[in-house]
Amino acid sequence: MSKYQHIKEEAYAANMQLPELGLVLFTFGNASAVDRDLGAFAIKPSGVAYEKLTPDSMVILDFDANVIEGELRPSSDTKTHAVLYKEWDKVGGIVHTHSTYGTSWAQAIRDVPIFGTTHADHLTVDIPCAPPMKDSYIEGNYEHMTGYQIIDCLKERNLSYEAVEMILVGSHAPFTWGKTAAKAVYNSAVLEECARMAYLTLQVNPEAERLKDTLINKHFQRKHGKDAYYGQ
Amino acid sequence: MSKYQHIKEEAYAANMQLPELGLVLFTFGNASAVDRDLGAFAIKPSGVAYEKLTPDSMVILDFDANVIEGELRPSSDTKTHAVLYKEWDKVGGIVHTHSTYGTSWAQAIRDVPIFGTTHADHLTVDIPCAPPMKDSYIEGNYEHMTGYQIIDCLKERNLSYEAVEMILVGSHAPFTWGKTAAKAVYNSAVLEECARMAYLTLQVNPEAERLKDTLINKHFQRKHGKDAYYGQ
Amino acid sequence: MSKYQHIKEEAYAANMQLPELGLVLFTFGNASAVDRDLGAFAIKPSGVAYEKLTPDSMVILDFDANVIEGELRPSSDTKTHAVLYKEWDKVGGIVHTHSTYGTSWAQAIRDVPIFGTTHADHLTVDIPCAPPMKDSYIEGNYEHMTGYQIIDCLKERNLSYEAVEMILVGSHAPFTWGKTAAKAVYNSAVLEECARMAYLTLQVNPEAERLKDTLINKHFQRKHGKDAYYGQ
Amino acid sequence: MSKYQHIKEEAYAANMQLPELGLVLFTFGNASAVDRDLGAFAIKPSGVAYEKLTPDSMVILDFDANVIEGELRPSSDTKTHAVLYKEWDKVGGIVHTHSTYGTSWAQAIRDVPIFGTTHADHLTVDIPCAPPMKDSYIEGNYEHMTGYQIIDCLKERNLSYEAVEMILVGSHAPFTWGKTAAKAVYNSAVLEECARMAYLTLQVNPEAERLKDTLINKHFQRKHGKDAYYGQ
Repeated sequence: MSKYQHIKEEAYAANMQLPELGLVLFTFGNASAVDRDLGAFAIKPSGVAYEKLTPDSMVILDFDANVIEGELRPSSDTKTHAVLYKEWDKVGGIVHTHSTYGTSWAQAIRDVPIFGTTHADHLTVDIPCAPPMKDSYIEGNYEHMTGYQIIDCLKERNLSYEAVEMILVGSHAPFTWGKTAAKAVYNSAVLEECARMAYLTLQVNPEAERLKDTLINKHFQRKHGKDAYYGQ
Repeated sequence: MSKYQHIKEEAYAANMQLPELGLVLFTFGNASAVDRDLGAFAIKPSGVAYEKLTPDSMVILDFDANVIEGELRPSSDTKTHAVLYKEWDKVGGIVHTHSTYGTSWAQAIRDVPIFGTTHADHLTVDIPCAPPMKDSYIEGNYEHMTGYQIIDCLKERNLSYEAVEMILVGSHAPFTWGKTAAKAVYNSAVLEECARMAYLTLQVNPEAERLKDTLINKHFQRKHGKDAYYGQ
Repeated sequence: MSKYQHIKEEAYAANMQLPELGLVLFTFGNASAVDRDLGAFAIKPSGVAYEKLTPDSMVILDFDANVIEGELRPSSDTKTHAVLYKEWDKVGGIVHTHSTYGTSWAQAIRDVPIFGTTHADHLTVDIPCAPPMKDSYIEGNYEHMTGYQIIDCLKERNLSYEAVEMILVGSHAPFTWGKTAAKAVYNSAVLEECARMAYLTLQVNPEAERLKDTLINKHFQRKHGKDAYYGQ
Repeated sequence: MSKYQHIKEEAYAANMQLPELGLVLFTFGNASAVDRDLGAFAIKPSGVAYEKLTPDSMVILDFDANVIEGELRPSSDTKTHAVLYKEWDKVGGIVHTHSTYGTSWAQAIRDVPIFGTTHADHLTVDIPCAPPMKDSYIEGNYEHMTGYQIIDCLKERNLSYEAVEMILVGSHAPFTWGKTAAKAVYNSAVLEECARMAYLTLQVNPEAERLKDTLINKHFQRKHGKDAYYGQ
């Protein structure tokens, strides 16, 4: 048995959740899971239908995106995952989808405003939308640079990847991450629902205002602060 | 067997209906059921996935939100339920969700206008949206004060909780109640559908007018008046 | 066995299709089927959940809405069905729903414009929205007058109930009919989809124009004209 | 066994995918598959419910739309398929639907703008909307002329049917094609999702701009260029 079996299983399970949660059409998405000790991550093979996936079809790569194990070509977005794992050493899983509402905000090149407590339960700022990539980067090592597009956007806004586990890549689609691949999947669904409700909020009231800071802090702290009392 | 078994079963059944009716994502909601003679209510444990719930995992509390029975931590919104049970002695069940359309109106901080007979079949006024909480309250006993935010909103509008079994908490999400937990769930679904149709009505006709009083009264009376002829 | 068994079965089957097609929430809808020779129709009992319906729970009434057979109270909208059966002698089935998009147009008190061939495949005019009822009628025999509200609207527009098998009752919701109860159900689903697409069409292009007459006629004729070549 | 069995099976499988992907209501759509050597294609029979279809119910026709084999009347849109097969010799399958978002853009008579990489993964231009047909054509051989309406629109825009495998027929609905019937179905789902996201993008940002050329080219090339690295 492969020494990477556990991350293959984790990546497989995360990938299979994506269609179940209505976050992907066909093969428009991918999830990965990392083992920091082994310096490797497992990711979905490119263009393979979810219903044909097995744990063994996952591809194992190092953080420079070199294939270590696996018969199939890895996801075309693999280099983005690799860069994020390399730069952010507390990330355990990464997910990329083209989910409908998140992608629509990305196409609109707009941050998703924090309008309510559903959003504040998960992050204290608008979901950032990274500006579209410079042409010189696009023509170069595109997926690799997409990783830096994400990293740079957080840096410029002074945001930590541990506090903000989701982003929109402008003109493209969402990326999310977390301590585990399952958490990254969860964040993809949260992003999609926040994007959907923010869209509807603006339809109902184009003058809707961002949630006030006291409520942002209260909701975030009760779920994530040192005296958090949400969950078991 | 626990003397609270019947309300555990009732709360469990009500909670399980929420994902089935499409009203919650993950654990974003909770339902409770009360026994007035025992002075206790049963509520969902915090952050536990619906598919893992059992009647025995429900937590039993008194109306001051003290845990009486149960291994797990109760819903983070428990104090809101407790206050409402304490103040409103004819309420048998309470539900809180972050359902998509209801929450979007709450984020827009707008009452849901009574545009048609679907709405009037259930209440004769706009679905009220309570204004966001004062900062001094947020920083204090937040969930406890959310209960008073709801109670005060109805009081200020001269509305009875027996006539109006639903509300939006501004910047947050819906709460509903009823004579039973099942009725509170039903009201959550009605609120969501009325919120969805009101949104669409305004898209189709931004000048749409509220339903006229004669129709409001007719529909409400035929379902709830002393000569009601709806149902068996 | 009841001599009305066949229309009970027909009405039952039609009612059961409504939740399956996503046209009703809870009990917000009803279907009926008529036998002209017997001068009677079968309709859903009031307020009974669809999953508890059986053919035998259908209620049999004459065209003056007198109960002939059945243990349960008939749908609260029964008098509307009765009036339509009495006035329109070629109608075999009637359906009433509060389907989301159709009801939203009814609440907006707007006809659904004929924007494309999907609509023209079924009728050559906008789906009419009957103006809300006069107050003196509402306070009288409301459901009976709803029947005349529908009949009068078609008359005033010079439309035949055989050519136009659907209407919106302003501030209320859709009614549809057809040669059979199954056809009336089909028309409810068509109305809902046309209402949904018309709403989206106006969002995409607020200046969208009605379909031109040559296309209206072509599509309607190929499906319903004397040289129709649609279907078997 | 019929020598057309393989295209009957292919057309059957493609047709059955349409309701599964949520692209058709009732019988509002049809798929066909061609065998170039036999000079024949298999298509859905007209007005037959999907759940009643079998491979043997498919109708076989030549490129002049003459029936070669089959008991049932072919789809009313058959002549459009025939014309496209005749004119475009590398097309292996064709699909027509009235899918909700695609049809709404067609009714709005608007091209679907290329707003993001989801779209660019499949084509490098806006999804074209062919202008509504001239009256003289409508009154003539309508479905035959619909084929030319599609062909002419691509010609006028200098687009190749091999690069652009989808179109909206103005006031009507989408048509898609591909090297196989399965690919044509896939394209119908892609068109629907791109149409849905473009609609939402404009709601979120009415000033949203088309994707820049460098990103269009990058995404298209990585999936379809000579050094493509998407898929296996």
